[in-house]
Amino acid sequence: MKSLNPQIHLVSRPVGEPVVDNFKLLELPLPDLQDGQVLVRNHFLSLDPYMRGRMNEGKSYAQPQPLNQVMLGGTVGVVAASKYAAYAEGDTVLTMGGWQHFCVLDANQRGSLQKVDARQIPLSAFLGALGMPGVTAWYGLVKIIAPKPEETVVVSAASGAVGSVVGQLAKARGARVVGLAGGAEKCRYVQEELGFDACIDYKQHADVKSLSAALKSACPDGIDGYFENVGGQILDAVMSRANPFSRVAMCGMIAGYNGEPIPMSAPQLILINRMKIEGFIVTEHLDVWPEALKELAALLTAGRLKFRESVSEGLASAPEAFLGLLKGRNFGKQLVRLI
Amino acid sequence: MKSLNPQIHLVSRPVGEPVVDNFKLLELPLPDLQDGQVLVRNHFLSLDPYMRGRMNEGKSYAQPQPLNQVMLGGTVGVVAASKYAAYAEGDTVLTMGGWQHFCVLDANQRGSLQKVDARQIPLSAFLGALGMPGVTAWYGLVKIIAPKPEETVVVSAASGAVGSVVGQLAKARGARVVGLAGGAEKCRYVQEELGFDACIDYKQHADVKSLSAALKSACPDGIDGYFENVGGQILDAVMSRANPFSRVAMCGMIAGYNGEPIPMSAPQLILINRMKIEGFIVTEHLDVWPEALKELAALLTAGRLKFRESVSEGLASAPEAFLGLLKGRNFGKQLVRLI
Repeated sequence: MKSLNPQIHLVSRPVGEPVVDNFKLLELPLPDLQDGQVLVRNHFLSLDPYMRGRMNEGKSYAQPQPLNQVMLGGTVGVVAASKYAAYAEGDTVLTMGGWQHFCVLDANQRGSLQKVDARQIPLSAFLGALGMPGVTAWYGLVKIIAPKPEETVVVSAASGAVGSVVGQLAKARGARVVGLAGGAEKCRYVQEELGFDACIDYKQHADVKSLSAALKSACPDGIDGYFENVGGQILDAVMSRANPFSRVAMCGMIAGYNGEPIPMSAPQLILINRMKIEGFIVTEHLDVWPEALKELAALLTAGRLKFRESVSEGLASAPEAFLGLLKGRNFGKQLVRLI
Repeated sequence: MKSLNPQIHLVSRPVGEPVVDNFKLLELPLPDLQDGQVLVRNHFLSLDPYMRGRMNEGKSYAQPQPLNQVMLGGTVGVVAASKYAAYAEGDTVLTMGGWQHFCVLDANQRGSLQKVDARQIPLSAFLGALGMPGVTAWYGLVKIIAPKPEETVVVSAASGAVGSVVGQLAKARGARVVGLAGGAEKCRYVQEELGFDACIDYKQHADVKSLSAALKSACPDGIDGYFENVGGQILDAVMSRANPFSRVAMCGMIAGYNGEPIPMSAPQLILINRMKIEGFIVTEHLDVWPEALKELAALLTAGRLKFRESVSEGLASAPEAFLGLLKGRNFGKQLVRLI
């Protein structure tokens, strides 16, 4: 009898806000391993805001998640069986293993899996600060914002997997760093644990005017760089305090993921302040990954890159955890423990 | 008795749309020329959209135009008297001579005036294709849009002083060029005289959807670069057809100059299409002027850089001509002939 592989499929596309019924847990038999293939037992699944975009059918930067197939997603795990010489049982690997216990990979397909050295670093970090979120933070901060010492950098979703790394990288470059996060607990963490200079609880500010005033007080010299994870009113407020020649790295706009309109109210500020706004997707910049990971690993080992995780237990909990992530209920990198 | 110098002052700030009563024509005596000074008789005054921004008191990239002083503006003229060795009576010069017949300049102040060689080039061209508008076009196109051959570049205000140069520079680089202009006559000029591949009459399109459809038809391969002079619905429509990795050079947003709200309706497209949007002011990039002017002069001499002028006669006509410029009533570079 074949082993069964529990997995979660997308069975319908959300209309507006996604719901748990868009997902379905199934147990399907594992296929036999062919030559050149590797079987990986997923240990941690990464949940990320980009997955929301892929649940739609419309035009975006990636192909839509196909219906009635395993939800795509990054995982770290351990090789359970191998018919490919370069991988052996017990190797720890990073892969797009999906929302499931096991995945079968064609190991000779470039980039399909990557060995990671988890002897001194917790396995889950390769999905966070030392993985895609960490490199995303690095790219936007280093390649787009490029802060000079003494400049002011603002980061939204500051306690999250990406935002927390952005701020710590900016601090390491001598910038003044101000976070935006939802709730007093997250703000305290951002300021006290991560070492940001200030953190604004955006939930305390009902409109752009109030948020803009809070930014003015937290950023007395204006804003030179902004790492955008949220969009909407937060972007408007930041732009109202932006300095000449400021840079915005546009990484995510979670405020509009469910199709809400999120206009930018005063694009003329781009001209008035000679701003640069640039959108990016980190998987399109694979050339910078080695340099980025090298700096991130060095900071982590030196204790200068802290991160926090929200770990949801068991595959069945993934849809609920994902919906919580979209509402900001997570605190730090959202993961699902699969074993 | 001292000579009188007719001049136009800004006497009140506009509320919304400017009116002729914001300006006043006066005749004040010319001061005596001091050592180190040069007296210039202005021949042509340049009228430019940026002047509208300076009429406001609020924050912008330049100091506001002071009240009850001569309106600032670029001029070309002829030296009428000189107490500075490097300039002689009869020299043709480019300067910020203002809305007046004569100006007195401190010639030892760097950049206060600049000799131009008008033997083979009409004097007025130094206020247009071979002046600030030309270099503005060059900077945005070459340094921000940087089109590759076969890419599609869209230009708003395509028959204007800046837009017309943008399109011809883009054609010279092998790009497909589509203009946006107001009215059939301007569109015909842009296509037939300036050699754009297509030109859309935006006045025929009442909303973003209609304009977006027109852009789709004129740009079957999408839009890779956009030179923005207008803003508002035109920007929204262009963004709806923007390709991955497209670039927007933000040079002007005339649609919002009177304080109308001009939101960008879908800034998430910046992320989805990994766009870069950059605002710039050409006077902050003086290092590129020699390179830009060299290319522009070469194209002009070779007959590959055409331009058109709307010339208003006499200083007293300047306010009316300026208000017309803001409404798009000019056709090509708006000038005032002062002699």
